[in-house]
Amino acid sequence: MKHILAFGEVMLRLCPQQFKMIDQTDTLDMSYSGTGLNILSGLARNGVQTHLLSVLPENPVGHAAAANIRRMGVQDHHLIYNGNHIGTYFLEMGFGNRPSQVTYLNRSESAFCTTEISESQMKAALSGIDLVHICGIALSTSKVGRKNALKLAKLTTELGIPLCFDFNYRMSLVKLEERSSLIQDYQEILKEANIVIGGKQDLTLLLEMPFDAAHEPVEKLYQRFVKAYELDYFCGTEKSSQGQTKFVRGFLSDKQEVVYSDDKVVTTYDRIGTGDAFAAGIIQGLIDQWSLQETVDFAATSTQLAHTTYGDSPILTQHFIQEKMKHDDLDVMR
Amino acid sequence: MKHILAFGEVMLRLCPQQFKMIDQTDTLDMSYSGTGLNILSGLARNGVQTHLLSVLPENPVGHAAAANIRRMGVQDHHLIYNGNHIGTYFLEMGFGNRPSQVTYLNRSESAFCTTEISESQMKAALSGIDLVHICGIALSTSKVGRKNALKLAKLTTELGIPLCFDFNYRMSLVKLEERSSLIQDYQEILKEANIVIGGKQDLTLLLEMPFDAAHEPVEKLYQRFVKAYELDYFCGTEKSSQGQTKFVRGFLSDKQEVVYSDDKVVTTYDRIGTGDAFAAGIIQGLIDQWSLQETVDFAATSTQLAHTTYGDSPILTQHFIQEKMKHDDLDVMR
Amino acid sequence: MKHILAFGEVMLRLCPQQFKMIDQTDTLDMSYSGTGLNILSGLARNGVQTHLLSVLPENPVGHAAAANIRRMGVQDHHLIYNGNHIGTYFLEMGFGNRPSQVTYLNRSESAFCTTEISESQMKAALSGIDLVHICGIALSTSKVGRKNALKLAKLTTELGIPLCFDFNYRMSLVKLEERSSLIQDYQEILKEANIVIGGKQDLTLLLEMPFDAAHEPVEKLYQRFVKAYELDYFCGTEKSSQGQTKFVRGFLSDKQEVVYSDDKVVTTYDRIGTGDAFAAGIIQGLIDQWSLQETVDFAATSTQLAHTTYGDSPILTQHFIQEKMKHDDLDVMR
Amino acid sequence: MKHILAFGEVMLRLCPQQFKMIDQTDTLDMSYSGTGLNILSGLARNGVQTHLLSVLPENPVGHAAAANIRRMGVQDHHLIYNGNHIGTYFLEMGFGNRPSQVTYLNRSESAFCTTEISESQMKAALSGIDLVHICGIALSTSKVGRKNALKLAKLTTELGIPLCFDFNYRMSLVKLEERSSLIQDYQEILKEANIVIGGKQDLTLLLEMPFDAAHEPVEKLYQRFVKAYELDYFCGTEKSSQGQTKFVRGFLSDKQEVVYSDDKVVTTYDRIGTGDAFAAGIIQGLIDQWSLQETVDFAATSTQLAHTTYGDSPILTQHFIQEKMKHDDLDVMR
Amino acid sequence: MKHILAFGEVMLRLCPQQFKMIDQTDTLDMSYSGTGLNILSGLARNGVQTHLLSVLPENPVGHAAAANIRRMGVQDHHLIYNGNHIGTYFLEMGFGNRPSQVTYLNRSESAFCTTEISESQMKAALSGIDLVHICGIALSTSKVGRKNALKLAKLTTELGIPLCFDFNYRMSLVKLEERSSLIQDYQEILKEANIVIGGKQDLTLLLEMPFDAAHEPVEKLYQRFVKAYELDYFCGTEKSSQGQTKFVRGFLSDKQEVVYSDDKVVTTYDRIGTGDAFAAGIIQGLIDQWSLQETVDFAATSTQLAHTTYGDSPILTQHFIQEKMKHDDLDVMR
Amino acid sequence: MKHILAFGEVMLRLCPQQFKMIDQTDTLDMSYSGTGLNILSGLARNGVQTHLLSVLPENPVGHAAAANIRRMGVQDHHLIYNGNHIGTYFLEMGFGNRPSQVTYLNRSESAFCTTEISESQMKAALSGIDLVHICGIALSTSKVGRKNALKLAKLTTELGIPLCFDFNYRMSLVKLEERSSLIQDYQEILKEANIVIGGKQDLTLLLEMPFDAAHEPVEKLYQRFVKAYELDYFCGTEKSSQGQTKFVRGFLSDKQEVVYSDDKVVTTYDRIGTGDAFAAGIIQGLIDQWSLQETVDFAATSTQLAHTTYGDSPILTQHFIQEKMKHDDLDVMR
Repeated sequence: MKHILAFGEVMLRLCPQQFKMIDQTDTLDMSYSGTGLNILSGLARNGVQTHLLSVLPENPVGHAAAANIRRMGVQDHHLIYNGNHIGTYFLEMGFGNRPSQVTYLNRSESAFCTTEISESQMKAALSGIDLVHICGIALSTSKVGRKNALKLAKLTTELGIPLCFDFNYRMSLVKLEERSSLIQDYQEILKEANIVIGGKQDLTLLLEMPFDAAHEPVEKLYQRFVKAYELDYFCGTEKSSQGQTKFVRGFLSDKQEVVYSDDKVVTTYDRIGTGDAFAAGIIQGLIDQWSLQETVDFAATSTQLAHTTYGDSPILTQHFIQEKMKHDDLDVMR
Repeated sequence: MKHILAFGEVMLRLCPQQFKMIDQTDTLDMSYSGTGLNILSGLARNGVQTHLLSVLPENPVGHAAAANIRRMGVQDHHLIYNGNHIGTYFLEMGFGNRPSQVTYLNRSESAFCTTEISESQMKAALSGIDLVHICGIALSTSKVGRKNALKLAKLTTELGIPLCFDFNYRMSLVKLEERSSLIQDYQEILKEANIVIGGKQDLTLLLEMPFDAAHEPVEKLYQRFVKAYELDYFCGTEKSSQGQTKFVRGFLSDKQEVVYSDDKVVTTYDRIGTGDAFAAGIIQGLIDQWSLQETVDFAATSTQLAHTTYGDSPILTQHFIQEKMKHDDLDVMR
Repeated sequence: MKHILAFGEVMLRLCPQQFKMIDQTDTLDMSYSGTGLNILSGLARNGVQTHLLSVLPENPVGHAAAANIRRMGVQDHHLIYNGNHIGTYFLEMGFGNRPSQVTYLNRSESAFCTTEISESQMKAALSGIDLVHICGIALSTSKVGRKNALKLAKLTTELGIPLCFDFNYRMSLVKLEERSSLIQDYQEILKEANIVIGGKQDLTLLLEMPFDAAHEPVEKLYQRFVKAYELDYFCGTEKSSQGQTKFVRGFLSDKQEVVYSDDKVVTTYDRIGTGDAFAAGIIQGLIDQWSLQETVDFAATSTQLAHTTYGDSPILTQHFIQEKMKHDDLDVMR
Repeated sequence: MKHILAFGEVMLRLCPQQFKMIDQTDTLDMSYSGTGLNILSGLARNGVQTHLLSVLPENPVGHAAAANIRRMGVQDHHLIYNGNHIGTYFLEMGFGNRPSQVTYLNRSESAFCTTEISESQMKAALSGIDLVHICGIALSTSKVGRKNALKLAKLTTELGIPLCFDFNYRMSLVKLEERSSLIQDYQEILKEANIVIGGKQDLTLLLEMPFDAAHEPVEKLYQRFVKAYELDYFCGTEKSSQGQTKFVRGFLSDKQEVVYSDDKVVTTYDRIGTGDAFAAGIIQGLIDQWSLQETVDFAATSTQLAHTTYGDSPILTQHFIQEKMKHDDLDVMR
Repeated sequence: MKHILAFGEVMLRLCPQQFKMIDQTDTLDMSYSGTGLNILSGLARNGVQTHLLSVLPENPVGHAAAANIRRMGVQDHHLIYNGNHIGTYFLEMGFGNRPSQVTYLNRSESAFCTTEISESQMKAALSGIDLVHICGIALSTSKVGRKNALKLAKLTTELGIPLCFDFNYRMSLVKLEERSSLIQDYQEILKEANIVIGGKQDLTLLLEMPFDAAHEPVEKLYQRFVKAYELDYFCGTEKSSQGQTKFVRGFLSDKQEVVYSDDKVVTTYDRIGTGDAFAAGIIQGLIDQWSLQETVDFAATSTQLAHTTYGDSPILTQHFIQEKMKHDDLDVMR
Repeated sequence: MKHILAFGEVMLRLCPQQFKMIDQTDTLDMSYSGTGLNILSGLARNGVQTHLLSVLPENPVGHAAAANIRRMGVQDHHLIYNGNHIGTYFLEMGFGNRPSQVTYLNRSESAFCTTEISESQMKAALSGIDLVHICGIALSTSKVGRKNALKLAKLTTELGIPLCFDFNYRMSLVKLEERSSLIQDYQEILKEANIVIGGKQDLTLLLEMPFDAAHEPVEKLYQRFVKAYELDYFCGTEKSSQGQTKFVRGFLSDKQEVVYSDDKVVTTYDRIGTGDAFAAGIIQGLIDQWSLQETVDFAATSTQLAHTTYGDSPILTQHFIQEKMKHDDLDVMR
């Protein structure tokens, strides 16, 4: 049985029911999420032993977060409790062609963003681990988070554990003057990484890799990126649409080739966290040593279905996803 | 005013809200359903006197079931109370292209599946009845249920009451070694039936009627079935799709001809019980002596709309369905 | 900062959750709405000072209505409290191709429909106001409401305040014998109006303006109407569909020309009040002195998005609507 | 098996959850109640066949009311559908020493208060009935209701069916100038009655019977009343308190004697309808021919427990109430 | 009509339903509160014009807070929008003898605690105001808040507006080293105040006034305090208990005397904000120029009933409270 | 850090909200509980490592149960998945002097009651464990459960691990003819036990130990029991009442003495599982090597507070309970 450790922030998500806006309701649905947690949640449903390294406030809210983390099947032994704040966001779920709206309360003061994790805490968390996942958003949200991420990446490589890194770069979170130092950090951590999750824009806009879509297929860009950073795998999703129908497909590149899934029709209930379902699917396939094609198909169906489930964190089992792959028009599973 | 008696199991349906999976919630919506009850629920809204013959546990849950049966407009005088268990299933409602998921708790030990109904109880229930409906699923779920169904079918015919039988055959519920005796039971009960609800697969897979789709239109198959079992009517639904749009249409065959409704666009909120809405629509038309075409059109619109309503049991009135038939693009009914 | 006064009834809306019918639930969502209130709600989110002139019952329900009016950002200083009844309707929300169903409890006895508003109350409400909105439905629901509406329209014009009038004519609310006197009232109030919201059918069916769609584009009809009643602006929405996709577009006519928005794809969650979102959008543009084209585009996007939000009253901010206009395929707004 | 018919209004009760006031919530619990319905609800749980004679609006709300009436176990065959309004009240449930607050929307325009019931409708409803219950509140709420009540009382006596009459007199509902004619109506109906439910104040304040508490025990008053109107039974409840503890006890008088139950400690969750539970308990005992003492004890425990259950309508079974009588300190019933 | 301005923080309150702990639920009730807002909420229900001076985040959460403030009847024109954080607390409501539990997320970084309010903003807010209320908790929660409070107090006095100051001192919020400077601030603001709300402990523990309960009645202490700070009024509540029954009473001291209300029995549903109901009651009486005794009786009943209502903010009307004063054993108010 | 293993059934608890009866609602709260799980839940909140040995159905319901077990902080590694049924009960929560009502669906067919656990599974679960808890109810509910319990008790002793046994005997679950063999099983398992939880009735009615309350204090009985079965500890609770006030106290006996806690006032919200909170408190004290007096005081406060919290499983932390012990009249904990 494989053991995976993810490092990332856990946020409190507050969401009105029935697609209402915040000022139309007196009731909120509460859940807890974050890229690392989401990926582990997806993996935990399929027999992977998952562990989260994160920082939570030392109060009933922090302990409620931990309870919800365990509920998803993720081990809580490496959670650190400190301070009194948790990053919080309100989600007003979109419907049809109305976009969802996300509002953050001061994330930068959260326990995760302000607590330095010691080397010994990290080493304890890394003990017995087969793969580490780090979410790139930690590089943008605070200096302490960035320091923790870089230190953990280094330690991971030193211990010979493969590292999976997710760009998760959001321009809007970064001030202009911090951009160049942020790029350096991304490059530093990419050097340690074996598996990278991202997309064309991460390569061209963040890493500023040259690319002329008119003269080069995007697969070439992916392959250049894999080679430049000596990665084992690079993967991500691409969106398209035809009339009112939206599609998503996945790509997975190793050093030799880039494989694609079919285009999957997207029907959306809850838009947040669907990329994390893809990442979880890829990791599942790599752990279980499926072929590249099987892996990217599974991951693409995972992300397709993640659009239809409540919450940021993938919750469908491998069995469910594979049944869907076999019987695409299944109405009821009994 | 016509009186209809249905015989069938009533199950407790437990369903998370907001399209959540069971392990994402602490709250369940409770309702009660079953093919017989569903059909009666549809008919009761249109002035038909409906009666259910079923067995419920002799405890507050059984009495809550009865309360909900009455709420739907179905008479509860022939409900029998015995034992302490009710068949229970969890429904995790699908969304968009995610299928719904149904999980049964041990159905075979329910009061319905373990209680033999006496001849005198049956005769009391049949008194004054103009049509009896039996759901074929009772043949698969337990030996006692099968025995009750067969006995009731015989008594119904003996009393000269027309019998409506619904295949409702689900392979997954039947063990291989029980298949041949089950087919015999189906054949036996079909001999008593006047109206049968089913589909192509019931004829070819269960009854093993020969059929070569390449050389024979399906109407021929339906007509052969009607003749073989000396039925008055055979009816059911057929699904199709075009791009992302799904359709359903109904067929209704008497001894002379097979008539079809138009293809109806399907938009799905709750997928369970939509076939029962079709059956209720057909029975309504036959009772009210509409033409075959009017009957199948009404039934097809009933099943179309049943995809859009909450719960297994049809809940729209004849008035509502007929308004929809007249004004297909109606947005708001005032 | 502009001040707008609307005159209109406030109704109690009671709506089952989860797309259920009334007899399937024990819980109702409560909100308060009405054309005048809806339009003010949309404007209040964008910095307009809004005031409602209406009559509410003098009891906790009336005060709860006022609390909800204030919650939407509308000033309550001109609300009059009298009697003990509020117009009430049940909304059973449709889903997909199932229409919504609206059931009124005796609206005609509401405080609004039975309370005459004095001239001094009207004058107090009109003080400092830059635009008045009157909803035509008040002409149909009761004699007292009609009298109040006509008196207010006159006073508005006397004070030199521009008047915006919304046809909002529903045949089903009017008895045949009252039709001709109702047309007179409409004509009388249209003479006072500067801005009118309506559609082709209001002109041809209610006002009985001649129109031959085969030989005249509808723009000609709009222009004839503007001229006949010496209006500054006439505007409204037009619906169309292509396969399963529905569209809405807006038109806005001044004395010189008729401009149209693009066709907007409609995805529907809650169908009620979407026309009021259009009206609010038009008024916003006119107040802020946008071009006709900018105004109708904004209003059309407002009505498009109003199909996707809960409740009768527009709740999206100008910022949200304009972001949608800029990035039509936006999934998540952060 | 006994058949009981009650005549009375059914109202829509709208109640915030969690002891909130109306303006603190967006959600209401919906139920349907009324003295006649409440009493039948209590009896229906114990094997009595119950029938309601009432008028409901002819729309989905009226049919939802009927569905809830059937859910309580009451037959709906004599419900009359007419008009579009149902009497509606908001209940803001009290807590501890905060009183509950009831707000009526215009009750006087309800279908029940405005629809005359024909003699043939009444006779149909009276067919096969062993006891009729009329609630005195119908005498106060409208002229039509009063007329219906008096006519039904006469018909009942003519057909030799015993009549149970409940004072249910609320001064606040009656205008001063109508008081004397109201007293006449009460006196008229009391002459037809066999069983009367009421209290000391009904006798002294409404009927203006002389009574000097200092010189006469209240039992004498009760006995004088029984004799004056040639009643079989007169019964009701008396409240008392000691420190913070509140008590209720029941009395039941026949022509010979007045018997009392013990004082029952009152713990209150939902205060409305507790008197109706007492009445149902008395009727149960009289039907089942228990002793006066057994009857009043059962009725007093019924009213005690009705303070602890949700809703206006008694919902506990005879079994539950009798278990409580046997084991007063029972914590959990299994 | 009197105009009152309160200055104080508005917090987001998140509260599980059904007395659950946070880790037992997925749903939270959302409301907004704060001492200043609470007092205004109580006054707004009785015809006082209320205005809040506070700082909210400039995002949908800040605007939802404002919507809820308006819902309570409080004017929002002087709300300032800045930053992205609102002070947040979780309330796990106690039951019976289990205490409630309050957990703050980092309050000190809230928009209110970090935004300096300009003199011109204050002056605009003070225009036309008859009484200002400042909550002492602002002195403890942040330096910016303290500065704002002191500046506002000075300006208030300069403009000749009476100032009401509420100690609201919580030792647990203050670090030891900050205590002495805090005392100075309290003393400074007390010098500006006309009306002060507090208790014995504020005088003896915070202000370190000498007091020997064995040799001096507490009224003497109150009178010494009134004289020392040249106050018009000092008031507060005192708790007591007898067996399992808890009591609260109010005191109100002017320069001449101290008057007390009766002991009021306390039955508790929601414990937070009950002191604010007392303060609102006192201010109401002083504004309306009731006698000291009437004022303290009303305030004490207000606080008694505030224990029985949901939420921090007083929501009962003057009418309701006075009915309770007249009929202490009232069960249902109709 | 101590590791505790509990063996016991996990049941699905379905509970209407707002103190409603089942037939008054369409919504149920879902939770999972059982004596073993409840005790572990209490201990897990205080740093004890807890593990549950149980059998759950191999379907989404079983996995949802496991998710909830983990949420409570209990390790799920020794859960066994088999079959398709989980023991299910409905709880209609009592209020005030109305008892709660529990209705079981067929518990005897649950996965737990029908699955034999192998010796190797037991040994794996016992590895590294410091204390084992077995609930006596397993002896009554099925033969397989009884066999599993006895086998586990034997293995526990063989491995030298202390055994805690809880009588949890409910007469109503046992048929007369099975009583004598059941007593034998109890006696057998008591011989293996070190700590026993129970009460006077378990000793006198089940074990038929002679006891004459008139001539012997109950402590003597407890001491005789401890000696007879060579226990280290025997403990339990005793109830009493005074007027309307109810009390509970705990006793804890070792070989030398019996110590008692104070009488604790009981205020009840949710009555189920309060005995398990006592047991968890005792085990906590014994693990942490507190004095007998400290232990029984803590356990008694735990059970007192468990009456005030939602759900069967203790959820308060050691910190919370100890704060309550220190400040009995605490209203709000911040």
